[in-house]
Amino acid sequence: MSRRFIMPEEAHTIIKEHFTATPVGVEKILVTEAYGRVLAEDVVSRLDVPSFSRSKVDGYAVSSADTFGAEEHQPVTLKVLGHISAGSYPRLKVKRGAAAGIATGAPIPTGADAVVMVEFTSREGNMVKIYRPVAPNANILERGFDIKAGETILKFQQLSASDLGVLSAIGLKEVKVFKKPKVAVISTGDEVVEPSKPLPSAKVYDVNRSTIAASVSICGCKPIIFGIVRDDPAALKHNLKKALTKAEVVITSGATSVGVEDYMPKILNELGKPGVIVGGLATKPGKPTNVAVVNGKPVFALPGHPASGLIVFNLLVRPVLCKMAGLPAEVSEPKVLAKAAARIFPEKGRRTYMTVRLERGLNGELLAHPIPAESGAITTLAKADGFIEIPETREFIEKDEKVVVHLLRAKSF
Amino acid sequence: MSRRFIMPEEAHTIIKEHFTATPVGVEKILVTEAYGRVLAEDVVSRLDVPSFSRSKVDGYAVSSADTFGAEEHQPVTLKVLGHISAGSYPRLKVKRGAAAGIATGAPIPTGADAVVMVEFTSREGNMVKIYRPVAPNANILERGFDIKAGETILKFQQLSASDLGVLSAIGLKEVKVFKKPKVAVISTGDEVVEPSKPLPSAKVYDVNRSTIAASVSICGCKPIIFGIVRDDPAALKHNLKKALTKAEVVITSGATSVGVEDYMPKILNELGKPGVIVGGLATKPGKPTNVAVVNGKPVFALPGHPASGLIVFNLLVRPVLCKMAGLPAEVSEPKVLAKAAARIFPEKGRRTYMTVRLERGLNGELLAHPIPAESGAITTLAKADGFIEIPETREFIEKDEKVVVHLLRAKSF
Repeated sequence: MSRRFIMPEEAHTIIKEHFTATPVGVEKILVTEAYGRVLAEDVVSRLDVPSFSRSKVDGYAVSSADTFGAEEHQPVTLKVLGHISAGSYPRLKVKRGAAAGIATGAPIPTGADAVVMVEFTSREGNMVKIYRPVAPNANILERGFDIKAGETILKFQQLSASDLGVLSAIGLKEVKVFKKPKVAVISTGDEVVEPSKPLPSAKVYDVNRSTIAASVSICGCKPIIFGIVRDDPAALKHNLKKALTKAEVVITSGATSVGVEDYMPKILNELGKPGVIVGGLATKPGKPTNVAVVNGKPVFALPGHPASGLIVFNLLVRPVLCKMAGLPAEVSEPKVLAKAAARIFPEKGRRTYMTVRLERGLNGELLAHPIPAESGAITTLAKADGFIEIPETREFIEKDEKVVVHLLRAKSF
Repeated sequence: MSRRFIMPEEAHTIIKEHFTATPVGVEKILVTEAYGRVLAEDVVSRLDVPSFSRSKVDGYAVSSADTFGAEEHQPVTLKVLGHISAGSYPRLKVKRGAAAGIATGAPIPTGADAVVMVEFTSREGNMVKIYRPVAPNANILERGFDIKAGETILKFQQLSASDLGVLSAIGLKEVKVFKKPKVAVISTGDEVVEPSKPLPSAKVYDVNRSTIAASVSICGCKPIIFGIVRDDPAALKHNLKKALTKAEVVITSGATSVGVEDYMPKILNELGKPGVIVGGLATKPGKPTNVAVVNGKPVFALPGHPASGLIVFNLLVRPVLCKMAGLPAEVSEPKVLAKAAARIFPEKGRRTYMTVRLERGLNGELLAHPIPAESGAITTLAKADGFIEIPETREFIEKDEKVVVHLLRAKSF
């Protein structure tokens, strides 16, 4: 089978032709557990907030007309009918010539149309002197001032701590959010061993399981770790089939060595239609990448080298998963502008994605240092803050040139 | 009891005098579940990575001396002894004049000191023609090249997806991380009602429970929601006592109305030494804030107004919680530079923290729009992306002036 190596842009287009990334469903969860989740409904308030006119200050609820003409040297004296504390329903009625003590947040009693701040009063027994006039509505937060019943207060968005407060304010205990799509994570290869098990010679520990699973979580999806599958067509087919029944998306890594390279697309084509739709990227890294759609579900077969796998994940898989999770573009593509700290060379003639380490320069500017990556090196992962793209048309990126860094870490720079 | 209102800086100093914010303990968790957690140990590799010298390419393992002089038109012919696939231990020995087929990642057999890429060979039966010479060590990733046994590979840091890969690569299944400090979240006030319950007149729903609990989680701590406590000294004392036995930090909100304002510090002083250490902030918002240390545990009593509570949380509580969680400064103080979109006025004579909404201007610059906040307004929360500080020495912030925005949302701008 001959492979056609294409650019990620073309891969995106082909993927979109065969698979529409949309949320997989909706669930109701507790507001207190909804931080970071994505709202799946427009939230309409069923009540006015505040649900009653309330005092903004500690002081005296009055009829404003009674205070007109009050001055520092000529206070108005009113009779105190009682005190209204926050949370209590006022049974008293403020008649002309009278006032009621009132706490911040307490409801305005009938008859009162303003509140005088306690600072501008003095109390003597059951009388209070008012030293300043107040206009009608002074210091009153009117019913529905903040939110009116029927008003849409939150739309489709990722929920922040403040948003949870807004949901609580209108009395919601639960909220509808998009379900987290389930994503099967499969590592393949005869040379791969589960961490914590003894390491026989010629074997390596499974790295991709943790990098890919964590990346899936970052995209708002739920990873299901399927473990390691041997380089054996029957085992691979069996496990892919199982993964496709249990998850909405399947990600494999490895299985790109000579023999396997041949049977991975074959198996994917056998599992369902349309089968393999992207047979390799024309980028470095990216060559041993397969994307298939099997009976409506996408399967991404990523390169086995940890840094390569993570880069291709970010290029191809992340946008799809974020859309399925309902996450906005800024989560799906975290990036930052920096300056190249040195001249950076691509793989000759191929578009190259180069891992970089970010560092603040002497003038506070953000510098991207290329990490000379040895094929499959783990320390590349430890050092890399992100990666940059070197276009296939460029001989190199010049020192101090502006580069867009696709972030692999959540650090703020 | 007379209160002294101080600046947040002084509050930080006083808090540090009475309480040293350090991690509360260490726990072992699965590497696959450690994303975002904070490493509590220097991780030293107990093995070389790779643990054997391996081929970087698909090709033929050879004795490099055999290839010297090989050319396009004068290839060297070697006898193929067999094939070494990834993960298999090579039993064969490459003698002079011989070669072994080898897959990417497969171990280099005894006798070979280089690998010729398959592209520069042609196979004929059990013979292979080599068209290019290779130097010793060509295309070999040597044992320990990436990581040497005994090498420290990760230090105290928040774990990214890549870091999890590094931990897996050296065979770790579990890793030591800092325990999440437990933080009790108590809402107070007779006017406060639990969301989902019916709302009697004069009452409001509990907002702070969700904003504060989510903020606690963002700081890498575990919120324990204690619910609503009435404005009653005995109930408050009982619940604070219980919270102090179950959590490492206690946060209350509300209980700042006239009567309560008096008994909250009294109760805190009765609960243990040194009691109240900060009796109010000289900022807007911030006045009704108490900080106490009770038998070695900090208690933060925040203003009840949702936006005020969230701002004071970010000013005073966040740095303490992040340190206790082991999180670095960039998590503890997320901020971004922006331009004031309009002239912004403070509360006269007081340092003012003003909520702002962020927006990209026409030239891509980040603009901070002040949100004219009504006392206690919920919609302020819905709109605010962060807040700015207007120094007490300034009459106003000028339009287009640079401002530091403390972020209340995790959006990337």
